[in-house]
Amino acid sequence: MGSKKKIGISPYELSHMIIEKEPANLLCTVNSKGKYNIMTITWGLLGPIWHKPVFMVAVRPERYTYGFIEEIQEFTVNLSTSDMKDAVDFCGTKSGRDYDKFKECGLTPVPGRTVRAPIIGECVLHYECRVIHRAEADPLTNHRLYFGEILAVYADEDIVKDN
Amino acid sequence: MGSKKKIGISPYELSHMIIEKEPANLLCTVNSKGKYNIMTITWGLLGPIWHKPVFMVAVRPERYTYGFIEEIQEFTVNLSTSDMKDAVDFCGTKSGRDYDKFKECGLTPVPGRTVRAPIIGECVLHYECRVIHRAEADPLTNHRLYFGEILAVYADEDIVKDN
Repeated sequence: MGSKKKIGISPYELSHMIIEKEPANLLCTVNSKGKYNIMTITWGLLGPIWHKPVFMVAVRPERYTYGFIEEIQEFTVNLSTSDMKDAVDFCGTKSGRDYDKFKECGLTPVPGRTVRAPIIGECVLHYECRVIHRAEADPLTNHRLYFGEILAVYADEDIVKDN
Repeated sequence: MGSKKKIGISPYELSHMIIEKEPANLLCTVNSKGKYNIMTITWGLLGPIWHKPVFMVAVRPERYTYGFIEEIQEFTVNLSTSDMKDAVDFCGTKSGRDYDKFKECGLTPVPGRTVRAPIIGECVLHYECRVIHRAEADPLTNHRLYFGEILAVYADEDIVKDN
Protein backbone atom coordinates (compact mmCIF):
# COMPACT_ATOMS: atom_id res chain seq x y z
CA MET A 1 0.00 0.00 0.00
CA GLY A 2 1.22 3.44 -0.89
CA SER A 3 4.46 2.12 -2.29
CA LYS A 4 3.66 2.06 -5.99
CA LYS A 5 5.94 3.92 -8.33
CA LYS A 6 4.76 7.48 -8.96
CA ILE A 7 5.64 9.20 -12.22
CA GLY A 8 5.86 12.97 -12.70
CA ILE A 9 3.49 14.46 -15.28
CA SER A 10 2.66 17.97 -16.55
CA PRO A 11 0.20 20.11 -14.54
CA TYR A 12 -2.86 19.54 -16.74
CA GLU A 13 -2.03 16.13 -18.19
CA LEU A 14 -4.61 14.21 -16.19
CA SER A 15 -6.77 17.18 -15.16
CA HIS A 16 -9.90 15.59 -16.61
CA MET A 17 -9.55 12.79 -14.05
CA ILE A 18 -9.29 15.01 -11.01
CA ILE A 19 -12.24 17.20 -12.00
CA GLU A 20 -14.46 14.36 -13.18
CA LYS A 21 -13.91 12.08 -10.20
CA GLU A 22 -15.40 14.42 -7.65
CA PRO A 23 -16.19 14.21 -4.83
CA ALA A 24 -13.46 11.64 -4.22
CA ASN A 25 -10.61 14.14 -3.93
CA LEU A 26 -8.74 14.44 -0.64
CA LEU A 27 -7.09 17.67 0.51
CA CYS A 28 -4.01 17.25 2.73
CA THR A 29 -2.52 19.96 4.90
CA VAL A 30 0.05 20.32 7.67
CA ASN A 31 0.34 22.77 10.56
CA SER A 32 3.44 24.38 12.08
CA LYS A 33 3.73 21.56 14.61
CA GLY A 34 3.99 19.04 11.79
CA LYS A 35 0.53 17.60 12.36
CA TYR A 36 -1.22 16.34 9.23
CA ASN A 37 -4.89 16.50 8.31
CA ILE A 38 -7.12 15.25 5.49
CA MET A 39 -10.39 16.73 4.24
CA THR A 40 -12.67 15.44 1.48
CA ILE A 41 -13.39 18.20 -1.03
CA THR A 42 -16.22 18.64 -3.52
CA TRP A 43 -14.90 21.87 -5.01
CA GLY A 44 -11.81 21.71 -7.17
CA LEU A 45 -10.97 23.87 -10.14
CA LEU A 46 -7.88 23.69 -12.34
CA GLY A 47 -6.50 26.24 -14.76
CA PRO A 48 -4.18 29.19 -15.26
CA ILE A 49 -4.01 32.45 -13.36
CA TRP A 50 -1.25 34.87 -14.32
CA HIS A 51 0.13 32.17 -16.63
CA LYS A 52 0.69 29.78 -13.74
CA PRO A 53 -1.02 26.40 -13.41
CA VAL A 54 -3.31 26.55 -10.41
CA PHE A 55 -5.53 24.28 -8.32
CA MET A 56 -8.30 26.11 -6.45
CA VAL A 57 -9.79 24.63 -3.29
CA ALA A 58 -12.44 25.99 -0.92
CA VAL A 59 -12.28 25.73 2.87
CA ARG A 60 -14.73 27.04 5.45
CA PRO A 61 -13.20 28.86 8.45
CA GLU A 62 -14.81 26.44 10.90
CA ARG A 63 -12.93 23.53 9.37
CA TYR A 64 -9.86 22.18 11.17
CA THR A 65 -8.06 22.36 7.83
CA TYR A 66 -8.57 26.15 7.72
CA GLY A 67 -6.03 26.87 10.49
CA PHE A 68 -3.54 24.51 8.88
CA ILE A 69 -3.69 26.10 5.45
CA GLU A 70 -3.68 29.62 6.88
CA GLU A 71 -0.52 28.76 8.83
CA ILE A 72 1.35 26.75 6.18
CA GLN A 73 0.13 28.00 2.82
CA GLU A 74 0.65 24.71 1.07
CA PHE A 75 -1.58 21.74 0.31
CA THR A 76 -1.87 18.60 -1.76
CA VAL A 77 -4.88 17.23 -3.62
CA ASN A 78 -5.08 13.47 -3.95
CA LEU A 79 -7.36 11.44 -6.20
CA SER A 80 -8.77 8.43 -4.38
CA THR A 81 -9.86 5.10 -5.84
CA SER A 82 -13.28 3.47 -5.59
CA ASP A 83 -12.09 1.09 -2.84
CA MET A 84 -11.27 4.11 -0.65
CA LYS A 85 -14.91 5.13 -0.31
CA ASP A 86 -14.98 4.58 3.47
CA ALA A 87 -11.97 6.84 3.91
CA VAL A 88 -13.50 9.48 1.65
CA ASP A 89 -16.70 9.40 3.73
CA PHE A 90 -14.78 9.50 7.03
CA CYS A 91 -12.59 12.42 5.93
CA GLY A 92 -15.67 14.31 4.72
CA THR A 93 -17.72 13.92 7.90
CA LYS A 94 -15.28 13.71 10.84
CA SER A 95 -13.00 16.46 12.15
CA GLY A 96 -9.24 16.23 12.45
CA ARG A 97 -9.75 17.83 15.89
CA ASP A 98 -11.15 14.49 17.06
CA TYR A 99 -9.28 11.97 14.95
CA ASP A 100 -5.93 11.29 13.32
CA LYS A 101 -7.50 10.62 9.95
CA PHE A 102 -4.45 8.94 8.43
CA LYS A 103 -4.40 6.47 11.32
CA GLU A 104 -8.16 5.92 11.52
CA CYS A 105 -8.42 5.28 7.77
CA GLY A 106 -5.24 3.23 7.49
CA LEU A 107 -3.75 5.68 5.03
CA THR A 108 -0.05 6.36 4.55
CA PRO A 109 1.26 9.92 4.71
CA VAL A 110 4.16 10.33 2.30
CA PRO A 111 6.28 13.52 2.43
CA GLY A 112 5.55 15.97 -0.36
CA ARG A 113 8.30 16.45 -2.92
CA THR A 114 8.04 20.24 -3.02
CA VAL A 115 5.69 21.17 -0.16
CA ARG A 116 5.46 20.42 3.56
CA ALA A 117 1.94 18.97 3.26
CA PRO A 118 1.99 15.20 2.77
CA ILE A 119 0.42 13.17 0.01
CA ILE A 120 -1.67 10.04 0.58
CA GLY A 121 0.30 7.03 -0.63
CA GLU A 122 -2.81 4.98 -1.46
CA CYS A 123 -4.18 7.66 -3.78
CA VAL A 124 -3.28 7.50 -7.47
CA LEU A 125 -2.85 11.10 -8.60
CA HIS A 126 -1.26 13.93 -6.61
CA TYR A 127 -1.03 17.71 -6.93
CA GLU A 128 1.39 19.66 -4.74
CA CYS A 129 0.45 23.31 -4.42
CA ARG A 130 1.58 26.55 -2.78
CA VAL A 131 -1.02 29.28 -2.24
CA ILE A 132 -0.40 32.34 -4.43
CA HIS A 133 -3.84 33.92 -4.19
CA ARG A 134 -6.89 33.96 -1.95
CA ALA A 135 -10.50 35.06 -2.36
CA GLU A 136 -13.60 35.35 -0.22
CA ALA A 137 -16.68 33.58 -1.53
CA ASP A 138 -20.21 34.86 -1.02
CA PRO A 139 -20.83 35.46 2.69
CA LEU A 140 -23.74 33.06 2.30
CA THR A 141 -21.44 30.12 1.67
CA ASN A 142 -18.63 31.33 3.91
CA HIS A 143 -15.84 29.71 1.92
CA ARG A 144 -12.30 30.95 1.66
CA LEU A 145 -10.84 30.13 -1.72
CA TYR A 146 -7.17 29.17 -2.03
CA PHE A 147 -5.44 29.28 -5.39
CA GLY A 148 -2.40 27.04 -5.17
CA GLU A 149 0.29 27.13 -7.82
CA ILE A 150 0.83 23.56 -8.94
CA LEU A 151 4.49 22.80 -8.19
CA ALA A 152 4.46 19.07 -8.88
CA VAL A 153 2.02 16.51 -10.26
CA TYR A 154 2.59 12.77 -10.27
CA ALA A 155 0.54 9.62 -10.58
CA ASP A 156 0.74 5.86 -10.28
CA GLU A 157 2.45 4.34 -13.29
CA ASP A 158 -0.64 2.42 -14.47
CA ILE A 159 -2.83 5.54 -14.27
CA VAL A 160 -0.45 7.45 -16.52
CA LYS A 161 -0.28 4.57 -19.01
CA ASP A 162 -4.06 4.03 -19.09
CA ASN A 163 -4.92 7.69 -19.58
CA MET B 1 -15.72 31.73 -41.46
CA GLY B 2 -17.76 30.88 -38.39
CA SER B 3 -19.91 28.45 -40.29
CA LYS B 4 -18.21 25.16 -39.44
CA LYS B 5 -20.26 22.43 -37.87
CA LYS B 6 -20.11 22.50 -34.07
CA ILE B 7 -20.59 19.29 -32.11
CA GLY B 8 -21.82 19.08 -28.52
CA ILE B 9 -19.42 17.48 -26.02
CA SER B 10 -19.37 16.84 -22.26
CA PRO B 11 -18.28 19.66 -19.92
CA TYR B 12 -14.75 18.45 -19.26
CA GLU B 13 -14.09 16.52 -22.47
CA LEU B 14 -11.66 19.04 -23.94
CA SER B 15 -10.87 20.93 -20.73
CA HIS B 16 -7.13 20.35 -21.15
CA MET B 17 -7.28 22.42 -24.35
CA ILE B 18 -8.98 25.43 -22.83
CA ILE B 19 -6.69 25.58 -19.80
CA GLU B 20 -3.49 24.90 -21.72
CA LYS B 21 -4.11 27.35 -24.54
CA GLU B 22 -4.14 30.44 -22.36
CA PRO B 23 -4.08 33.32 -22.84
CA ALA B 24 -5.96 32.83 -26.08
CA ASN B 25 -9.40 32.48 -24.51
CA LEU B 26 -12.06 35.06 -25.29
CA LEU B 27 -14.86 35.94 -22.88
CA CYS B 28 -18.13 37.08 -24.48
CA THR B 29 -20.89 38.93 -22.67
CA VAL B 30 -24.09 40.82 -23.48
CA ASN B 31 -25.85 43.70 -21.72
CA SER B 32 -29.57 44.33 -21.27
CA LYS B 33 -29.66 46.39 -24.46
CA GLY B 34 -28.37 43.41 -26.44
CA LYS B 35 -24.92 44.89 -26.98
CA TYR B 36 -22.13 42.34 -27.19
CA ASN B 37 -18.56 42.59 -25.89
CA ILE B 38 -15.40 40.48 -26.01
CA MET B 39 -12.52 40.41 -23.52
CA THR B 40 -9.32 38.36 -23.66
CA ILE B 41 -8.84 36.43 -20.42
CA THR B 42 -5.74 34.96 -18.82
CA TRP B 43 -7.53 33.42 -15.86
CA GLY B 44 -9.75 30.43 -16.46
CA LEU B 45 -10.39 27.53 -14.14
CA LEU B 46 -12.58 24.50 -14.75
CA GLY B 47 -13.98 22.00 -12.29
CA PRO B 48 -16.85 21.08 -10.02
CA ILE B 49 -18.50 23.11 -7.29
CA TRP B 50 -21.52 21.58 -5.55
CA HIS B 51 -21.35 18.74 -8.10
CA LYS B 52 -21.89 21.10 -11.01
CA PRO B 53 -19.39 21.64 -13.82
CA VAL B 54 -18.14 25.20 -13.58
CA PHE B 55 -15.97 27.65 -15.50
CA MET B 56 -14.48 30.43 -13.35
CA VAL B 57 -13.50 33.74 -14.89
CA ALA B 58 -12.09 36.91 -13.29
CA VAL B 59 -13.17 40.43 -14.24
CA ARG B 60 -12.00 43.73 -12.79
CA PRO B 61 -14.75 46.28 -11.98
CA GLU B 62 -13.18 48.89 -14.26
CA ARG B 63 -13.60 46.63 -17.27
CA TYR B 64 -16.46 47.30 -19.67
CA THR B 65 -17.31 43.60 -19.41
CA TYR B 66 -17.96 43.97 -15.67
CA GLY B 67 -21.23 45.89 -16.12
CA PHE B 68 -22.37 43.40 -18.74
CA ILE B 69 -21.82 40.33 -16.61
CA GLU B 70 -23.27 42.00 -13.52
CA GLU B 71 -26.42 42.82 -15.51
CA ILE B 72 -26.82 39.57 -17.45
CA GLN B 73 -25.21 36.85 -15.38
CA GLU B 74 -24.21 34.75 -18.34
CA PHE B 75 -21.09 34.44 -20.43
CA THR B 76 -19.32 32.29 -22.99
CA VAL B 77 -15.66 31.32 -23.16
CA ASN B 78 -14.25 30.73 -26.63
CA LEU B 79 -10.95 29.11 -27.55
CA SER B 80 -9.22 31.00 -30.36
CA THR B 81 -6.83 29.66 -32.96
CA SER B 82 -3.26 30.79 -33.64
CA ASP B 83 -4.35 32.83 -36.68
CA MET B 84 -6.60 34.92 -34.43
CA LYS B 85 -3.66 36.44 -32.56
CA ASP B 86 -4.44 40.00 -33.70
CA ALA B 87 -8.00 39.70 -32.42
CA VAL B 88 -6.79 38.24 -29.12
CA ASP B 89 -4.39 41.18 -28.72
CA PHE B 90 -7.04 43.73 -29.68
CA CYS B 91 -9.65 42.29 -27.30
CA GLY B 92 -7.09 42.25 -24.50
CA THR B 93 -5.93 45.85 -24.87
CA LYS B 94 -8.89 47.87 -26.22
CA SER B 95 -12.14 48.66 -24.44
CA GLY B 96 -15.60 47.81 -25.72
CA ARG B 97 -16.51 51.35 -24.64
CA ASP B 98 -14.52 52.61 -27.64
CA TYR B 99 -14.92 49.81 -30.17
CA ASP B 100 -17.35 47.19 -31.42
CA LYS B 101 -14.82 44.41 -31.05
CA PHE B 102 -16.70 41.91 -33.21
CA LYS B 103 -16.75 44.43 -36.07
CA GLU B 104 -13.20 45.69 -35.60
CA CYS B 105 -11.78 42.16 -35.51
CA GLY B 106 -14.00 40.76 -38.25
CA LEU B 107 -15.45 38.18 -35.89
CA THR B 108 -18.92 36.65 -36.17
CA PRO B 109 -21.25 36.73 -33.15
CA VAL B 110 -23.39 33.60 -33.13
CA PRO B 111 -26.33 33.37 -30.69
CA GLY B 112 -25.69 31.14 -27.69
CA ARG B 113 -27.67 27.92 -27.53
CA THR B 114 -28.57 28.25 -23.85
CA VAL B 115 -27.45 31.75 -22.83
CA ARG B 116 -27.99 35.28 -24.11
CA ALA B 117 -24.25 35.93 -24.51
CA PRO B 118 -23.01 35.13 -28.02
CA ILE B 119 -20.23 32.81 -29.05
CA ILE B 120 -17.51 33.71 -31.57
CA GLY B 121 -18.09 31.70 -34.73
CA GLU B 122 -14.40 31.68 -35.71
CA CYS B 123 -13.35 30.11 -32.40
CA VAL B 124 -13.14 26.33 -32.18
CA LEU B 125 -14.34 25.43 -28.68
CA HIS B 126 -17.18 27.09 -26.76
CA TYR B 127 -18.45 27.05 -23.16
CA GLU B 128 -21.85 28.57 -22.34
CA CYS B 129 -22.17 29.48 -18.67
CA ARG B 130 -24.62 30.97 -16.18
CA VAL B 131 -23.22 32.51 -12.99
CA ILE B 132 -24.12 30.50 -9.87
CA HIS B 133 -21.53 31.89 -7.50
CA ARG B 134 -19.33 34.94 -7.04
CA ALA B 135 -16.26 35.74 -4.96
CA GLU B 136 -14.06 38.73 -4.22
CA ALA B 137 -10.37 38.27 -4.87
CA ASP B 138 -7.65 39.92 -2.80
CA PRO B 139 -8.25 43.70 -2.70
CA LEU B 140 -4.74 43.99 -4.15
CA THR B 141 -5.79 42.42 -7.44
CA ASN B 142 -9.32 43.82 -7.42
CA HIS B 143 -10.87 40.95 -9.35
CA ARG B 144 -14.41 39.75 -9.08
CA LEU B 145 -14.62 36.02 -9.68
CA TYR B 146 -17.60 34.54 -11.50
CA PHE B 147 -18.34 30.84 -11.28
CA GLY B 148 -20.50 29.94 -14.25
CA GLU B 149 -22.29 26.63 -14.42
CA ILE B 150 -21.41 25.09 -17.77
CA LEU B 151 -24.73 24.64 -19.59
CA ALA B 152 -23.38 23.67 -23.00
CA VAL B 153 -20.01 22.86 -24.55
CA TYR B 154 -19.40 22.36 -28.24
CA ALA B 155 -16.49 22.41 -30.64
CA ASP B 156 -15.59 22.31 -34.31
CA GLU B 157 -15.92 18.80 -35.69
CA ASP B 158 -12.19 18.46 -36.49
CA ILE B 159 -11.18 19.57 -32.98
CA VAL B 160 -13.35 16.88 -31.42
CA LYS B 161 -11.97 14.22 -33.77
CA ASP B 162 -8.34 15.22 -33.27
CA ASN B 163 -8.49 15.33 -29.47
